[in-house]
Amino acid sequence: MAVNSPLPIAAHLTPVAGIELGHAEAGVRKPNRKDVLVMTLAPTATVAGVFTLNRFCAAPVQVCKAHLEGLHMAGAPIRALVINTGNANAGTGETGLADANAVCSALAGLLDCEAAQILPFSTGVILEPLPVARVNAGLPQALANLSADNWYNAAETIMTTDTQPKAGSATVVINGETITLTGISKGAGMIKPNMATMLGFLATDAGVSQHVLEHMVKQAADHSFNCITIDGDTSTNDSFMLIATGAAKLQVTEIDSPEYALLAEAVTNLSRSLAQMIVRDGEGATKFMTITVEQGTSIEECRKIAYSIGHSPLVKTAFFASDPNLGRILAAIGYAGVDDLDVSKLDLYLDDVLVARNGGRNPAYQEADGQRVMQQSEITVRVRLGRGDAVATIWTCDLSHDYVTINADYRS
Amino acid sequence: MAVNSPLPIAAHLTPVAGIELGHAEAGVRKPNRKDVLVMTLAPTATVAGVFTLNRFCAAPVQVCKAHLEGLHMAGAPIRALVINTGNANAGTGETGLADANAVCSALAGLLDCEAAQILPFSTGVILEPLPVARVNAGLPQALANLSADNWYNAAETIMTTDTQPKAGSATVVINGETITLTGISKGAGMIKPNMATMLGFLATDAGVSQHVLEHMVKQAADHSFNCITIDGDTSTNDSFMLIATGAAKLQVTEIDSPEYALLAEAVTNLSRSLAQMIVRDGEGATKFMTITVEQGTSIEECRKIAYSIGHSPLVKTAFFASDPNLGRILAAIGYAGVDDLDVSKLDLYLDDVLVARNGGRNPAYQEADGQRVMQQSEITVRVRLGRGDAVATIWTCDLSHDYVTINADYRS
Repeated sequence: MAVNSPLPIAAHLTPVAGIELGHAEAGVRKPNRKDVLVMTLAPTATVAGVFTLNRFCAAPVQVCKAHLEGLHMAGAPIRALVINTGNANAGTGETGLADANAVCSALAGLLDCEAAQILPFSTGVILEPLPVARVNAGLPQALANLSADNWYNAAETIMTTDTQPKAGSATVVINGETITLTGISKGAGMIKPNMATMLGFLATDAGVSQHVLEHMVKQAADHSFNCITIDGDTSTNDSFMLIATGAAKLQVTEIDSPEYALLAEAVTNLSRSLAQMIVRDGEGATKFMTITVEQGTSIEECRKIAYSIGHSPLVKTAFFASDPNLGRILAAIGYAGVDDLDVSKLDLYLDDVLVARNGGRNPAYQEADGQRVMQQSEITVRVRLGRGDAVATIWTCDLSHDYVTINADYRS
Repeated sequence: MAVNSPLPIAAHLTPVAGIELGHAEAGVRKPNRKDVLVMTLAPTATVAGVFTLNRFCAAPVQVCKAHLEGLHMAGAPIRALVINTGNANAGTGETGLADANAVCSALAGLLDCEAAQILPFSTGVILEPLPVARVNAGLPQALANLSADNWYNAAETIMTTDTQPKAGSATVVINGETITLTGISKGAGMIKPNMATMLGFLATDAGVSQHVLEHMVKQAADHSFNCITIDGDTSTNDSFMLIATGAAKLQVTEIDSPEYALLAEAVTNLSRSLAQMIVRDGEGATKFMTITVEQGTSIEECRKIAYSIGHSPLVKTAFFASDPNLGRILAAIGYAGVDDLDVSKLDLYLDDVLVARNGGRNPAYQEADGQRVMQQSEITVRVRLGRGDAVATIWTCDLSHDYVTINADYRS
């Protein structure tokens, strides 16, 4: 059950001209559930992505990177994406690479293109061989129901421990033309993206040239998927892909243009919404916390402190209990690794309540005020460092019994 | 309930000549429990300690450091230590410092010495004012039952969420003389010491000169309290104190001496035992894990990877579930921050079972073998990096429902 369930998914997800989606029940890990998704792209489409920095990055991530690199070399456009759940194809060595390539080859055969024009994605259990035959057997089934109006099914297909699908649509008017954006994401545990989240796919019908799209996807990720954490575990499979089909008249070819600014803002806002849905549906989550650290000397130190608070099991269990045991936040600030931090200049707010002032308990602070805020399902923790102008914000959730239950039972 | 309860506490804790201990029920936070401890030292005793690196270090830690510094200046020996539970006196600003000094002054008045000859320690809730009057009212009660044979009561007095007291005694023969060591420790949550643990006190009747003792306490901490983690939360109050009373004939005055080596080894071994007791009694712990990372290029990178595994909520819940979901360990290795790690050279063992070889699943690995080891209450995770000769070992525990329960209910 996500925080403030149901998640704010639009009643109707808008098709993006140039994209079709099909799904299959391939039985990758369990029967009778959608677990393979194919997205086909118009030949005019450009694609850019950001990927996990985990050194054990999964085989499909390695293949994706190689195929995107090949795109630069050969100019043959990406024709389709294929995503399976139930198995991450990570920690699988050379066999895993061969398996990911085999899936690309099978889909390329069906679509009459090169394997290098397919991008593969996997999510699920690590360290187990990908059941390639089952994935490939699902591909014709997925192609048989290809449709531009299939985004909701796509969002359902990529779920693992997610309790709800995550998707959104938006429009932005640029040069008098209405541009459409639709995206999906998944993820609920092993979430501390480092350049991207578990899986996110966002498409627009605008045309965007390749190098501009690469800039845009990084910008969007840095202000969305790279600002969330559930348990501090960076996945082996994190991938966030931005697709611009070019079906609209709009063509964005310059980063320093008003068109870029408008489209990038729309992409970033939808990415943020998709990223926050992941946190709201975090494994066992009952609270959604915004952590803002202000007045730092650098964004990096603000993020360090924000993540130190957001990862602390003691802070997270206190939020789960609605217990204003706020000294735990001070402790997490103190061990964040900002060695020259002068705590005597530090203020701590819980929503509008000033809890600590100049590094000590605010004399006017009443436990009842902290208690009132802690009862809410959405809470902002604000730290003012009193040493600069930098700011950083992250989003996270609490640590509950259900997190332990879900992760103790994950494979059973 | 600690792992493999009861903890291996000696039936009889050996008194250390030159140390007496007294305890009081002062009602610091809750009535009818021992919560104030006084340790008095012979005038010949030397004292050295290591303290938390948390920037929000508690008021008593700051006062301890100042008094140990003053010891160097004025030469007046430390005469007593005073420890309270129920309140950490951290995040309390200037008031907290005044409160810690007030306790020192009160005890100094009773012992007829200077306040600067007292070392204060506190542990408990952060961000709440220390109830000085109650602590001070307990001091005469504690002095009234001072006894050299009071170590077990002392270990009980300093408990917070600990389910069992932690203590040990050892002897070592040096130059034909039997030297005694006895120590106590406490801590079960907010445990990821950075120079020391929550609280540890170890005394020997050997004489050790001040600068030699300072070297010895760092060496012992680096191989014991600095190698454990429960939840990755570094406390504001971590302190580990080593006391050498000088009651024995042995006088250690040189670091490069056989006497130093023998005594330091005995101190380190007892420190390690006290530190491991903290992990075995970790909040909600059901498993005790030894994580060894070998063949690294530096001890630092081995520790980074070991802590990344030891802090991962996903790894810890898998151990709680006895589920050999070992890909989670690979993921934690991958995001440890060793950027040039070549995972194709990496092997992973669970006890004697080779799970992953050359970065991928060992073809001979059977899930049943992993399952067998995971059922044990004590498990070794061994990672071989294949890139150097450095080794590091840490000790940690699993993440269970009871961890969440204990920390959600801590103040209630």
